[in-house]
Amino acid sequence: MSDIKKVVLAYSGGLDTSVIVRWLQDNYGCEVVTFTADIGQGEEVEPARAKAEALGIKEIYIDDLREEFVRDFVFPMFRANAIYEGEYLLGTSIARPLIAKRLIEIANETNADAISHGATGKGNDQVRFELGAYALKPGIQVIAPWREWDLTSRESLMAYCKERDIPVDFDGGKKKSPYSMDANLLHISYEGDILEDPWSEPEEDMWRWSVSPEAAPDEPTFLELEYRNGDIVGIDGEAMSAATVLETLNKVGGANGVGRADIVENRYVGMKARGCYETPGGTIMLRAHRAIESITLDREAAHLKDELMPRYASLIYNGYWWSPERRMLQAAIDDTQGVVNGVVRVKLYKGNVIVAGRKSQDSLFDESIATFEDDAGAYDQKDAEGFIKLNALRLRIAASKGRNPLDGQ
Amino acid sequence: MSDIKKVVLAYSGGLDTSVIVRWLQDNYGCEVVTFTADIGQGEEVEPARAKAEALGIKEIYIDDLREEFVRDFVFPMFRANAIYEGEYLLGTSIARPLIAKRLIEIANETNADAISHGATGKGNDQVRFELGAYALKPGIQVIAPWREWDLTSRESLMAYCKERDIPVDFDGGKKKSPYSMDANLLHISYEGDILEDPWSEPEEDMWRWSVSPEAAPDEPTFLELEYRNGDIVGIDGEAMSAATVLETLNKVGGANGVGRADIVENRYVGMKARGCYETPGGTIMLRAHRAIESITLDREAAHLKDELMPRYASLIYNGYWWSPERRMLQAAIDDTQGVVNGVVRVKLYKGNVIVAGRKSQDSLFDESIATFEDDAGAYDQKDAEGFIKLNALRLRIAASKGRNPLDGQ
Amino acid sequence: MSDIKKVVLAYSGGLDTSVIVRWLQDNYGCEVVTFTADIGQGEEVEPARAKAEALGIKEIYIDDLREEFVRDFVFPMFRANAIYEGEYLLGTSIARPLIAKRLIEIANETNADAISHGATGKGNDQVRFELGAYALKPGIQVIAPWREWDLTSRESLMAYCKERDIPVDFDGGKKKSPYSMDANLLHISYEGDILEDPWSEPEEDMWRWSVSPEAAPDEPTFLELEYRNGDIVGIDGEAMSAATVLETLNKVGGANGVGRADIVENRYVGMKARGCYETPGGTIMLRAHRAIESITLDREAAHLKDELMPRYASLIYNGYWWSPERRMLQAAIDDTQGVVNGVVRVKLYKGNVIVAGRKSQDSLFDESIATFEDDAGAYDQKDAEGFIKLNALRLRIAASKGRNPLDGQ
Amino acid sequence: MSDIKKVVLAYSGGLDTSVIVRWLQDNYGCEVVTFTADIGQGEEVEPARAKAEALGIKEIYIDDLREEFVRDFVFPMFRANAIYEGEYLLGTSIARPLIAKRLIEIANETNADAISHGATGKGNDQVRFELGAYALKPGIQVIAPWREWDLTSRESLMAYCKERDIPVDFDGGKKKSPYSMDANLLHISYEGDILEDPWSEPEEDMWRWSVSPEAAPDEPTFLELEYRNGDIVGIDGEAMSAATVLETLNKVGGANGVGRADIVENRYVGMKARGCYETPGGTIMLRAHRAIESITLDREAAHLKDELMPRYASLIYNGYWWSPERRMLQAAIDDTQGVVNGVVRVKLYKGNVIVAGRKSQDSLFDESIATFEDDAGAYDQKDAEGFIKLNALRLRIAASKGRNPLDGQ
Repeated sequence: MSDIKKVVLAYSGGLDTSVIVRWLQDNYGCEVVTFTADIGQGEEVEPARAKAEALGIKEIYIDDLREEFVRDFVFPMFRANAIYEGEYLLGTSIARPLIAKRLIEIANETNADAISHGATGKGNDQVRFELGAYALKPGIQVIAPWREWDLTSRESLMAYCKERDIPVDFDGGKKKSPYSMDANLLHISYEGDILEDPWSEPEEDMWRWSVSPEAAPDEPTFLELEYRNGDIVGIDGEAMSAATVLETLNKVGGANGVGRADIVENRYVGMKARGCYETPGGTIMLRAHRAIESITLDREAAHLKDELMPRYASLIYNGYWWSPERRMLQAAIDDTQGVVNGVVRVKLYKGNVIVAGRKSQDSLFDESIATFEDDAGAYDQKDAEGFIKLNALRLRIAASKGRNPLDGQ
Repeated sequence: MSDIKKVVLAYSGGLDTSVIVRWLQDNYGCEVVTFTADIGQGEEVEPARAKAEALGIKEIYIDDLREEFVRDFVFPMFRANAIYEGEYLLGTSIARPLIAKRLIEIANETNADAISHGATGKGNDQVRFELGAYALKPGIQVIAPWREWDLTSRESLMAYCKERDIPVDFDGGKKKSPYSMDANLLHISYEGDILEDPWSEPEEDMWRWSVSPEAAPDEPTFLELEYRNGDIVGIDGEAMSAATVLETLNKVGGANGVGRADIVENRYVGMKARGCYETPGGTIMLRAHRAIESITLDREAAHLKDELMPRYASLIYNGYWWSPERRMLQAAIDDTQGVVNGVVRVKLYKGNVIVAGRKSQDSLFDESIATFEDDAGAYDQKDAEGFIKLNALRLRIAASKGRNPLDGQ
Repeated sequence: MSDIKKVVLAYSGGLDTSVIVRWLQDNYGCEVVTFTADIGQGEEVEPARAKAEALGIKEIYIDDLREEFVRDFVFPMFRANAIYEGEYLLGTSIARPLIAKRLIEIANETNADAISHGATGKGNDQVRFELGAYALKPGIQVIAPWREWDLTSRESLMAYCKERDIPVDFDGGKKKSPYSMDANLLHISYEGDILEDPWSEPEEDMWRWSVSPEAAPDEPTFLELEYRNGDIVGIDGEAMSAATVLETLNKVGGANGVGRADIVENRYVGMKARGCYETPGGTIMLRAHRAIESITLDREAAHLKDELMPRYASLIYNGYWWSPERRMLQAAIDDTQGVVNGVVRVKLYKGNVIVAGRKSQDSLFDESIATFEDDAGAYDQKDAEGFIKLNALRLRIAASKGRNPLDGQ
Repeated sequence: MSDIKKVVLAYSGGLDTSVIVRWLQDNYGCEVVTFTADIGQGEEVEPARAKAEALGIKEIYIDDLREEFVRDFVFPMFRANAIYEGEYLLGTSIARPLIAKRLIEIANETNADAISHGATGKGNDQVRFELGAYALKPGIQVIAPWREWDLTSRESLMAYCKERDIPVDFDGGKKKSPYSMDANLLHISYEGDILEDPWSEPEEDMWRWSVSPEAAPDEPTFLELEYRNGDIVGIDGEAMSAATVLETLNKVGGANGVGRADIVENRYVGMKARGCYETPGGTIMLRAHRAIESITLDREAAHLKDELMPRYASLIYNGYWWSPERRMLQAAIDDTQGVVNGVVRVKLYKGNVIVAGRKSQDSLFDESIATFEDDAGAYDQKDAEGFIKLNALRLRIAASKGRNPLDGQ
């Protein structure tokens, strides 16, 4: 294998990435730097230190990236109302560019010549990690063990552990979930096992972050979300940091059965895959952001955002956060958000997120014009005739030349 | 006023359009042909005959358009997964082109030189009626009384009725709703009154087609929807006509608290307006259609549909059903639907529509490739490296020339 | 007519707008402020002062807006490579928002309550002037004499002049062109007369800014254009202001037969219209800008710009310069231009604009990778296999499930 | 190497693909079927038979695909007005899906299990061939010698020939061009050698299909092109087949110096590359098609086509002809072309293609409305006021709420 001297590994502290540490040491004979981040996955990151030390690691990075994650990645994405394929809130996708950025920063600090990760060769995450890494440091080398090694079954992995004395009760004796999972402050995801049949419904005990709508309280919960420049800056009158906003919404949303999704999605590498997701806070944020935009955004700006959104969402899904085209779209999106200020009142009830009110100093809703009552001349109904006549002109001319829409002309 | 001899009026049988009949007779001195359609608004249309006769109408058209409405308008629209501004299922919009078409057909049959409708000068419906009419018969004249007359308040309208002996208990003594409403097989809408303040929540007794999530049954309801070419052709194993499908879904959805929306939308005439909608069947159909597409549609076709959808939805919202650009988009959309066949299982529960399964003979989901287990060589993980490397090449070159994404380059 | 006290008129000094001065005075009994701008139309603006004074005007504004026009309107538009309907370089369209802005600024300075212009009711310019004015001062009133008066023929206009003692040799005895023309630093346009038949070719003596390709020199002219942030800042090594750049290119381009266009375009008001245009400098700038972008812009940013361009061009054509959606697109476009630096060498010859070279410190063209010769490992050809395999995966799966593209599946 | 028994090779009859024949026989020990197509590259294809026989080939396919190429690939593409990156008419790209289709058809007929081609691992053509092949026959194997072998320099290739007794004067002693070239009925392309520096101008003797503008006749040539359903069906009154149309236009265009392009383009595999192209007929067709559309197409259909075009062009450039998304766009495009009938008169002069007239029975140009003269009431100028007022309404409301476009709001 190539002459790599030092590699920075995205290290979770779990079994798989611990195996990778040893495999890298064995096969590349290189020094391994571990990087473990708290992005809100809900597990302690500090224990990773001892595990890394036990594997002989000398350079160990453990970072709390929760605020940066929400402020610089999740919030900008929600300004776009991004949804992939009509359903997926991009919870895994949006965490990857941040990990890629830190891997490269650490590679620079430690003079490493490579990075490594535990993503498989069938998934999107390898693409997201590596596109980000290459965009930020073009000469970096990438080691993707799952694409290289022959430990393709659980059995072969266990055999490898036994052979190398890697403790297999690494996950602390917790019952191993049959699902492949990923979590961060925005969501938790489940893949594999019975989900591989799109006709089968997930079992209730799979879900970890939310109660079922059936089990949610019989009384609704109301929240008032305060927006500034398109981001939530406070809840129920209390100012909050970005990460605290999302944590709070996750907790309240999950308690009310909000945010489950069960979809078949199209991966960038070309296959369809079944995934289940819990995104309680994100589900609330998406609906609330649309609500505050509904009274503050100009119509055509809003429509243009809607037309650009699927492209923007695909870019993030496919791993192109650190690309010129994503930044270009972000510039357009952010240009519209200076007026997206105000308060949205939402009602959470057994899985439902219901907008119960929206108000803003920057509202473009004009009751004096919209009213069904006498508007005192604010709007001249006669203007509508000319508006319609000229919008119809091209259609009238076509029809007068003999074209008939009923015949598809 | 111009020398119009005969006008076809979209006549509901209610007070407003009855006033219009008299006003047309008085002000234009012309013959009035009434046209009343059953598009599933949930009121008898036959009584309109006697009312029209009482107003001296000789040519009275009463049509049951429910099947045509769902088959030729609602279903094609749902193939596109159309939503306006992220929330509105276009329930009113999609009925207008059918009414416009019938008005023109009747104008042709009766040698009328004009059409008339009861839509106000502030709304979208006038635009939709008239764009359709002009596209189908360019020389037609349009009389829009609400843009012309001075009966701008309820009082002046009542005074006019009294003066002309128009019976004001026309609506059969039913308590007059404070809301402006519109209904057809796809939805019922509410505007006006307290809704004119976007901060105020609608009162529970406004809603007519659905129970609240709170009042819905504690047990979920499951449905199996069978798709053929993108349209639902059967429910729970029973073949059904288009209108019956929608009626059935409305009933079951409404009973489970499904399909309420409360939004501020941007009208084509330039103002923001608050509207509340109940679209039980449509809400189920949208989610289920996405689910069947998720296993049967090619990724890029699906993404292109998503990118075109906002444009398509705006065209329908703005009244351009009978335009070349709508047909052009429909051609693209319909081109993809030949493979959209199969069954979607949905679970309805207190306002939630949950996809509980999807299967299809035309499924592109390939378990042998998607699996986390050994795939027996169906997919070569090593291919991913080249895929990523070449997708990254432009980014690597840019970075190697000194561009740094962290500096926005 | 309404109680307007003072109106700011876009005044050319020509016969038509002089008639408008008198007509406004007569019909509105209001004070008229004249505003005449030099935007490079090629006629002296100072003589407008004496003419305005002769009409009794007290507040006369005469501005040289050439630099602002090119710097703040033409150059930003060319960053987008904007073309309307594949052919039209938007020469008239782009001048209107500047005129609208100045009209409103002057209305603010002079406490005028209205603006007025000489654009007809069939054209796009009325829309552009008025949309701009309303966006910048929502309470402004607009007087559009051509939509109001009955001076619809040349004869009635002349009769009006005679009656009111308006000198009809106002245009200095110059032979009246049979064409309706408009000029500014970006272009000159021709409409009307024999052009109203799309089958007839314009006569050679119509064109004013360029020689015909036939009459152009037999020797080519070469220019080196220096770009900075997407704008031309120097020609042949000499730094130049924005307006000087365009003047220079117009002169050299026109002398080489460059920049004529003869098209049928779709007006925003709904009709098709024939127009001929001379845009010598703009024609050179469009091609050269694409050339400098071809070596400096990232592929996906360039493609996204191309996809957004038609929308952007329509917005300008339709008069929406001062809209949120135009600014939003501009933000996206401008975000890409920081790297658009370098030099383009163009060859002008008898109507042709030929790119003869492009170079840049910010070039992304990498000879070591692009070469047909041995690239010393800069690019690994084996990567292409994985790239193709995974891009093909969705197509392979579809085909393996029995879909056949030859049958349109 | 894998156990391939028979491979179909896209065989030009030239040296490179002759080497590939031998290399396949040597390295795969498999039978080779050669396929040589006349797609208008301007060289005899029949001589390839003897060369193939000399190499021991038993199954030799030689097809004249010129009509199919223009009718089923070039013409549909020109209906879209497709241009890649503003300059490239996709001459190479559009020929590849046809070659891929024939390779697969022949593989099916001959029971071959693989195809092979002579495209390099750096270019787009490998992608186009292989995507097409995989889409049409998912189990096919692909051998791309340039990605596998070590004959990476001219010297090593010659040494191989010498060793295997492959005659190196295969190309008939013609002076070897320093450029890599590709030709078909739509264009001829040049890459490599001095073109690898984007600042250097190509030498005049590189160009093969056109005279320079300088060397073109001093008298213009006029042509009348007759369109039916968006395709040219006759020239100067003479009905012609698709291929004859293109041949004719190539000849006349080339003689008038029409159709040269010199660009830097972005390849799908991620690099920028310099290419020069001669596309005489295509250059005329693009301009003429836009001209006939300008009088026959509805405005919004035309604009939508313009917005979709860059995507469509990229799909073809990238090799996705046989994809659902290309077919979907084609369905939209073709839906508009039923009215694209009529005649365009073009003037060719020293590199210029000038539209000198367009006429159609399906013209939407309405002189009675467009006229500057009295239109006898065909258009009511007063309608424009309402049209503008309501289009401005959202902007007026925003401004009245304090938003100021001059401050970017």
